[in-house]
Amino acid sequence: MKRLSLSLALLLIGVCAYAQQALWGGSQIVSPEIHPDKTVTFRVQAPKAVKVQVTGDFLPRAEVKTERGTMKVSGTADMTEGKDGVWEFTTPEPLASELYSYSFIIDGFRTNDPSNVFLNRDVRSITNIFIVGGDPGDYYKVNKVSHGTVARRWYDSPGLGMERRLTIYTPPGYETSGKRYPVLYLLHGAGGDEEAWIALGRTAQIMDNLIAQGKAEPMIVVMTNGNAGQEAAPGETSVEGQPSMRQPGNVPGKFEAAFPDVIKFIDQNYRTLKRKSGRAIAGLSMGGGHTINISMDYPDTFDYVGVFSSALFRQGDERTASIGKLKTQFAKNPKVYWIAIGNEDFLLDACNQFRQILDENNLKYTYFENGEGHIWKNWRIYLTKFAQMIFK
Amino acid sequence: MKRLSLSLALLLIGVCAYAQQALWGGSQIVSPEIHPDKTVTFRVQAPKAVKVQVTGDFLPRAEVKTERGTMKVSGTADMTEGKDGVWEFTTPEPLASELYSYSFIIDGFRTNDPSNVFLNRDVRSITNIFIVGGDPGDYYKVNKVSHGTVARRWYDSPGLGMERRLTIYTPPGYETSGKRYPVLYLLHGAGGDEEAWIALGRTAQIMDNLIAQGKAEPMIVVMTNGNAGQEAAPGETSVEGQPSMRQPGNVPGKFEAAFPDVIKFIDQNYRTLKRKSGRAIAGLSMGGGHTINISMDYPDTFDYVGVFSSALFRQGDERTASIGKLKTQFAKNPKVYWIAIGNEDFLLDACNQFRQILDENNLKYTYFENGEGHIWKNWRIYLTKFAQMIFK
Repeated sequence: MKRLSLSLALLLIGVCAYAQQALWGGSQIVSPEIHPDKTVTFRVQAPKAVKVQVTGDFLPRAEVKTERGTMKVSGTADMTEGKDGVWEFTTPEPLASELYSYSFIIDGFRTNDPSNVFLNRDVRSITNIFIVGGDPGDYYKVNKVSHGTVARRWYDSPGLGMERRLTIYTPPGYETSGKRYPVLYLLHGAGGDEEAWIALGRTAQIMDNLIAQGKAEPMIVVMTNGNAGQEAAPGETSVEGQPSMRQPGNVPGKFEAAFPDVIKFIDQNYRTLKRKSGRAIAGLSMGGGHTINISMDYPDTFDYVGVFSSALFRQGDERTASIGKLKTQFAKNPKVYWIAIGNEDFLLDACNQFRQILDENNLKYTYFENGEGHIWKNWRIYLTKFAQMIFK
Repeated sequence: MKRLSLSLALLLIGVCAYAQQALWGGSQIVSPEIHPDKTVTFRVQAPKAVKVQVTGDFLPRAEVKTERGTMKVSGTADMTEGKDGVWEFTTPEPLASELYSYSFIIDGFRTNDPSNVFLNRDVRSITNIFIVGGDPGDYYKVNKVSHGTVARRWYDSPGLGMERRLTIYTPPGYETSGKRYPVLYLLHGAGGDEEAWIALGRTAQIMDNLIAQGKAEPMIVVMTNGNAGQEAAPGETSVEGQPSMRQPGNVPGKFEAAFPDVIKFIDQNYRTLKRKSGRAIAGLSMGGGHTINISMDYPDTFDYVGVFSSALFRQGDERTASIGKLKTQFAKNPKVYWIAIGNEDFLLDACNQFRQILDENNLKYTYFENGEGHIWKNWRIYLTKFAQMIFK
């Protein structure tokens, strides 16, 4: 009789699959296929296409001339048509371990891979992703380790006059341990929101893996929305509209001024270590500017500061005032003040100007420079490194 | 001086936007555009394309002949090419309020709308979505109301021998009220996982809106992963791979047998009403089968039962045994036993057979039948109705 009920269940599933296929045209093609030797094959069925290409950050970058000068962009590779109009490209070399993004270009039309459901949104572009294991890729994967909890929650911000959404990672065991935990406040860049670090930044995976390996202390990570005029990420807010680099209400200083609302909410609602040595703050690009400002505006609040691909975005009198605040902040000996940037970052000069201010005033920080530019590949690396430096 | 710092910030944002554009080719085209009269315009730039169509559930359905007979599928409309190779289609009539899905078909290649970042994954197909306001669409929107918290959390399931991921909605005020809340266990169908109800089902938006309007009691909603062999949704698990209708380890009865692990975890970790009148269970398709089985296997556990687009998937001796269990369950007078299905659902006959069993044995339930078939449009409607019937 077991066989009968099984067969009915399978029939049901079969019919569902069939209906789903017919309605939504799911694909049976395997793409991307990561081979044991870490070469990768991409496939897409486009029988009527004349030219099909794959583009992504796994390819050598190309230089394009623009009115603002030459810039490097993701490379493009032609795909070859095989039977049934399935176009294919295999990387000539094994790929280094990394989380990669890619798209297809079919007769000039950029599209996602219909065979790969794994996607990331970066501002208003959606690309497919895949991970090649090893270091650092294994930090970005979900591994068989204990997992923290990721919550999307709303807090009241009197300073900004609205309820606002944030993303909170609590480490494995938080709910039952009864212990208090340190908090890392992690800030996104322009065009981002409270989803950026958890999705593009792989924060939950990085923290789960570092904690499981004993490389990072169990900590709470709070990912806010740094756009002062915004309740929440597009699609998660009562204000309809697409994501954009320019957010209404992003007046410089406004988000920083209201940041105590966030700390107050977290300290009231979570078992935190409510002291300077229990708090870290880090951010990328615009969020790095927020990090510099918030950590110097509240010099007794954070013992650990991480500035990723950023600079001091203040001029004239504000810049002069900032130097005074930085002196006060550093006089209180923060345990870590870490500045990281890629040697191709368009903010490298601005970052060097900020470091020059710190050097001229003999304010001690640590500097890390690696390759490439203003990209998530670097910000994931910076988070992985910074998380191992704090709360020790 | 303010002007200077502002101009630098804008320069920064401009450059970021520019870099982002160049790297990821974000689109400036507006699509879809929902007009005040609720007609909708779709646009896509494809200068080299010969034929461009839009397909989605907002169009009249078409009939296609298959080896399994005629079936209705989403309709398709031809788009018209305008300047700069931008193809456009505007619905001839205003659209009824609903959450709609659509894709473009460019020279036979099905693709998402590069101008619309809002997507849903259904099994392994990803489509764009948009919401036309009104009833029921306004229930699916994020409105300016108090919002609950949505957490992704892992629980230990000794019954299935693994840590497993679930999605939990806690109502507005849960964290601070100190009160105990009733719990709705909400189960997905074949091909789904713990992301299905929160994403395709719009559970958080539906609950936020119903609670804000006083139409539903504040409640906790627990969305489990009903695939007994699976830790978590694809991309969220240590087992790599794409979603599929057939999940390894989906032996009938296995998920049901381990369900007490879920209830135990929720009752231990949340402020719940630990009694029959404080628990509801509902599910769609495969999850409706799970709901029938779990509610009769544990007849003292749930006072509210919702069976969406489903049936009793048991034959022979198992079916006979089930009838005995159903009699026991109904003898204990569950407050609500609600069966809902669309009049085009491929499970309508199976559902009627189940109702016949209940009728023959004089087991009292409520039946709701509406139009169309085995689709999320119906499951969102069923959740919206069921949530208003329970815990009153």
